[in-house]
Amino acid sequence: MSQLLIVGTVAFDAIETPFGKSDKILGGAATFIGLAASQFDINSAIVSIVGGDFPKEYLSLLERRNIDTTGIEIVEDGKTFFWHGRYHNDMNSRDTLVTELNVLADFNPIVPASHKNSEIVVLGNLHPQVQISVLEQMETKPKMAILDTMNFWMDNTPEDLNRVIGMVNAITINDAEARQLTGEYSLLVAARKIQQMGPEYVVIKKGEHGALLFHEDEIFYAPALPLEEVFDPTGAGDTFAGGFAGYLACTRDIEFNNIKNAVIYGSALASFSVEKFGTQRMLDLKPQELRERLEQFKQLTQFEIELT
Amino acid sequence: MSQLLIVGTVAFDAIETPFGKSDKILGGAATFIGLAASQFDINSAIVSIVGGDFPKEYLSLLERRNIDTTGIEIVEDGKTFFWHGRYHNDMNSRDTLVTELNVLADFNPIVPASHKNSEIVVLGNLHPQVQISVLEQMETKPKMAILDTMNFWMDNTPEDLNRVIGMVNAITINDAEARQLTGEYSLLVAARKIQQMGPEYVVIKKGEHGALLFHEDEIFYAPALPLEEVFDPTGAGDTFAGGFAGYLACTRDIEFNNIKNAVIYGSALASFSVEKFGTQRMLDLKPQELRERLEQFKQLTQFEIELT
Repeated sequence: MSQLLIVGTVAFDAIETPFGKSDKILGGAATFIGLAASQFDINSAIVSIVGGDFPKEYLSLLERRNIDTTGIEIVEDGKTFFWHGRYHNDMNSRDTLVTELNVLADFNPIVPASHKNSEIVVLGNLHPQVQISVLEQMETKPKMAILDTMNFWMDNTPEDLNRVIGMVNAITINDAEARQLTGEYSLLVAARKIQQMGPEYVVIKKGEHGALLFHEDEIFYAPALPLEEVFDPTGAGDTFAGGFAGYLACTRDIEFNNIKNAVIYGSALASFSVEKFGTQRMLDLKPQELRERLEQFKQLTQFEIELT
Repeated sequence: MSQLLIVGTVAFDAIETPFGKSDKILGGAATFIGLAASQFDINSAIVSIVGGDFPKEYLSLLERRNIDTTGIEIVEDGKTFFWHGRYHNDMNSRDTLVTELNVLADFNPIVPASHKNSEIVVLGNLHPQVQISVLEQMETKPKMAILDTMNFWMDNTPEDLNRVIGMVNAITINDAEARQLTGEYSLLVAARKIQQMGPEYVVIKKGEHGALLFHEDEIFYAPALPLEEVFDPTGAGDTFAGGFAGYLACTRDIEFNNIKNAVIYGSALASFSVEKFGTQRMLDLKPQELRERLEQFKQLTQFEIELT
């Protein structure tokens, strides 16, 4: 049994940034989530779909990291989902040049029987009906179902989106999307509204400004590490979600204090992810590097004020 | 002798926000800095200039808070500096509708003899030559001179600005200004460049995204408290600087770990300042409220990850 089940895209990305451009490389939300989660000593599984053009060595690469790929359907005569994007100079905004859904257009997720009791489920950004289908296939209600989504689904499938939001324990969403979803400018008020829609835990991602975690009346703020340069932001949000989920799957503790730690782990892994193109940095990351970066996060945030 | 010397504007503000508008009320950088610093048990002094139209009760109000006003020159036949601004709906940007320099146009700061040995000096946003003049009048080099400035001086008096930056120990500057001053987008790289210009401590203020403190190779991140609403941002940056300086003047400890605390105190006081028009919230703030907010900052940022 996997401790962590991930549904999301496994894809090809082609990326252009002010620093250079990549060929068609390994990408997709589930890939980034899985590779980040694989930094922890856990078994995970991906449910996704690819075409016959998807290299077998990419699947082996995931398998070597204890990520079960039997839930990745291979459509031999189909083509893998492809995204081509270009980042602007500030690296905070981007244009999508090409989106080819290909096999993703008819994705009907099948959760393998061996993974229907996973304790943690991550629903990567996808059509909300696909996300709902995965939750409905679970035999045991997950201890923690984590939803990622984007503005596209708010615009196009708001009812389905609201339904899946009502089914999960946690949501990760960026600041602009939280504002769009709720019509509230204050992120505090927006988070309170999203909590009322279902999720006990709301994580609002603010890119270079860090992430906010809301739970009941509590708030926790994880900064982003100030970086000399961001090389490629692709997958940073998914890497955050993967680190968050992987840490929870590994520690099996979903108390608020441990979820704070999960946000810090997610932020630390995301800070690595942007240092190289695509998944490269997650693939070559060493445990000692992660420990050192967590130490930096402590230095960055911890202070001693004695209150009387 | 005052422990804290402040130079800056003492002024009238008229403020319009989406929530309402104020009459001509007490404002000015030195006022906000002084009132924030007065939350600590210290003696401070303001060097500034006002016109004959400036109400004596405003001076008494400052005096009652241990702020010596003998360095505030009163030009009986002149008018006090006046600023009239309107905030946009997002409260992050504003239009200046009226700026009347009035007596400020000919401000020649005179530091009273009794304040020429202050340990901490805050140079509020003013013409850099005025700031330099104050530093040059000090008999003892301050333990900590803190500079605040803005893009106007980068555009109009860059040489004077660079000179005063080279004379201070610390600078507080917002993110857009740090980028403009250095031509660097990365705030980390920008801060390193500003450190090379002189200040050992660089504080980059990011508004609703908090503040970053840079010193040698260390970085500290103080979040802003997520708020339900920002009522009036006027003076938040000055309140931050005043809290920062007041805490240092009170604790007389300028080691990095204590400067982290100063950033947290500055952030906590700024989070109050925006809750009401102008100086109102600083005037009615109770010590117990400040303690509770500092506790919130701890909750917001402190986490326990044991690294092996």
